[in-house]
Amino acid sequence: MSDQEKELKVLRDQIDSIDKQIHQLLNDRARCAQQVAEVKEKHQGPQDAVFYRPEREAQVLRRVMARNEGPLADKEVARLFREVMSVCLALEQPMHVAFLGPEGNFTQQAASKHFGHSAHCIPFSNSDEVFREVEAGGAHYGVVPIENSSEGMVGHTLDLFKRFQLTICGEVKLNIHHHLLRAGVEGLDGITHIYSPQQTLSQCRSWLDNHFLSAERVPVSSNSEAARMALQQGPGAAAIASELAADLYQLNIVSKNIDDQSDNSTRYLIIGDQIVGESGQDKTSILVTVRDKAGALYELLEHFHKHEISLTGIETRPASTESSHSVFYIDFQGHSANSHIQKVLQELESDSVELKILGSYPVAVL
Amino acid sequence: MSDQEKELKVLRDQIDSIDKQIHQLLNDRARCAQQVAEVKEKHQGPQDAVFYRPEREAQVLRRVMARNEGPLADKEVARLFREVMSVCLALEQPMHVAFLGPEGNFTQQAASKHFGHSAHCIPFSNSDEVFREVEAGGAHYGVVPIENSSEGMVGHTLDLFKRFQLTICGEVKLNIHHHLLRAGVEGLDGITHIYSPQQTLSQCRSWLDNHFLSAERVPVSSNSEAARMALQQGPGAAAIASELAADLYQLNIVSKNIDDQSDNSTRYLIIGDQIVGESGQDKTSILVTVRDKAGALYELLEHFHKHEISLTGIETRPASTESSHSVFYIDFQGHSANSHIQKVLQELESDSVELKILGSYPVAVL
Repeated sequence: MSDQEKELKVLRDQIDSIDKQIHQLLNDRARCAQQVAEVKEKHQGPQDAVFYRPEREAQVLRRVMARNEGPLADKEVARLFREVMSVCLALEQPMHVAFLGPEGNFTQQAASKHFGHSAHCIPFSNSDEVFREVEAGGAHYGVVPIENSSEGMVGHTLDLFKRFQLTICGEVKLNIHHHLLRAGVEGLDGITHIYSPQQTLSQCRSWLDNHFLSAERVPVSSNSEAARMALQQGPGAAAIASELAADLYQLNIVSKNIDDQSDNSTRYLIIGDQIVGESGQDKTSILVTVRDKAGALYELLEHFHKHEISLTGIETRPASTESSHSVFYIDFQGHSANSHIQKVLQELESDSVELKILGSYPVAVL
Repeated sequence: MSDQEKELKVLRDQIDSIDKQIHQLLNDRARCAQQVAEVKEKHQGPQDAVFYRPEREAQVLRRVMARNEGPLADKEVARLFREVMSVCLALEQPMHVAFLGPEGNFTQQAASKHFGHSAHCIPFSNSDEVFREVEAGGAHYGVVPIENSSEGMVGHTLDLFKRFQLTICGEVKLNIHHHLLRAGVEGLDGITHIYSPQQTLSQCRSWLDNHFLSAERVPVSSNSEAARMALQQGPGAAAIASELAADLYQLNIVSKNIDDQSDNSTRYLIIGDQIVGESGQDKTSILVTVRDKAGALYELLEHFHKHEISLTGIETRPASTESSHSVFYIDFQGHSANSHIQKVLQELESDSVELKILGSYPVAVL
């Protein structure tokens, strides 16, 4: 046995011994999860028992990240725990998740990020169908895009909450950074065509308008496809894509972070029919309908200001029936079970035509 | 605190304590993996050190499955360990994997199944490009489909091994079972249209010919899409899709396992430029070129028979240059480092115009 082999054998024996312990603990954990399910079935009844608790999962993941000392990165170790919880849950209840397809898109990534890979994720061709599937009980949860930091809220999704009696059970964030990539040469001179998916082109619109008003913007099916086009077509072509794509296609990053918003994240909602408990770091989403009058929005927001509640998002929606009404979608920090938040909700209710609480749910962990 | 809450608290405290131990062990394991990398860099040099060892991963996973006592299923716990190894490896070397796209297809599932979700998987539009990318060093490994149990070998992939100097480093199997699904009614009467992806229709061809020679076979983009069509169009339409799809779309399974082969698996190859060591349960793939003559194939196979080596696959390929030559792709059990196998390879070499050993690699674990 060579020196290398000897040294490796010692380390591998150590790894094998660690693996045995991890393995034992994983099965111990699964047994505990089974007992949790039994307790729930005993007290809540086998039909009504709720096995998946978003607030509890968020707490577990936050604790994992808080106590992590490495060398594994916080997010990587949290991702492993997400998978562990996903596998333990699947033992009790195979989770069915409907998402806005097609298969392989970012929404599916968001679904897997949130539920782990033991969940069965099924694509639907529009958000209405995702809502319908969840309301009909065909899927336990649904995942739909709600907000892009440069494009704003996905209004259509918000409007679906008026038609369906579903709640928001969670949110997922995906961070996406875009660069301008080019084959062979550096700098920005001589670019005539810019390839990227339509959504990415929109997310970089003002940067493109400032630098390449006359270059042709060519929508393609994916960021990988854009990078491939830049490689094939040579220096006259550029792609907007990720660092990974630059690396893989050996393209030069000729301009970094060209997104109009530096924190370009896409946000997705988990929809279901569950009231989610407090996780300690929560958000609440509501739809408020008010009579149109000068200062109506200001009056609404004053309630939040007075109680020192931070708003995280607001969007005006067209009222569906009464033309003299306005509807606002509002996101804010805090959980509706909290007495402080309850006061604001009471005030809003007495000040509005209608207040619909869409749900309180854990702030995205990963 | 209610009885339920008290009982749940005890169990959750137990789970938290287990999680802390698992967490600690995961970081211990990552540290060992870092030390393994340091030993390799010291002895092999930082440029040439090989961090990913398919045979070692196969051994770890086989041990996990062998010792598993549940309640987690063997495959689920192995999948978790695959992710753990994937995360530990990414700490040393972020893995880039090229696969035959498009994104979201079964080949990507195969890549993730083999390398875990810490690997970066990038789609390419044909197998040639996957091979080129790996040969050029743009990706560490590639994943391409090689065999479908009803459609046979993917000949084009085999031919690429003649053009590229790459080896086979592993194999992945995905199992897929198909059923005939229908909305509302039971039985097979009155079906006029059958929806499914083209590949699935081919995989069920003889069953369809026997039962539905006159029904129209309509190719669609995915199995989910097929199930959705069956639901929308009512009892005249049927879908060929999975049990999961039946469950999700609340369709009746009117005929089970209609695949022409009961074990309908798709096989994928991991390609790279690495010589993979013995894992204890290995396969070897070769390309043998022989002069055309009566009994040429029989003579080749006799060598295997004599040494009691099990063949797992054989396929005739057209010879690219000499029309008087035949090329055979052969898969068999055993590793080329084994003296028993070496004897056969020597015999084959002296009996053939050319013998190309494509690689020895672990038999698919999961």
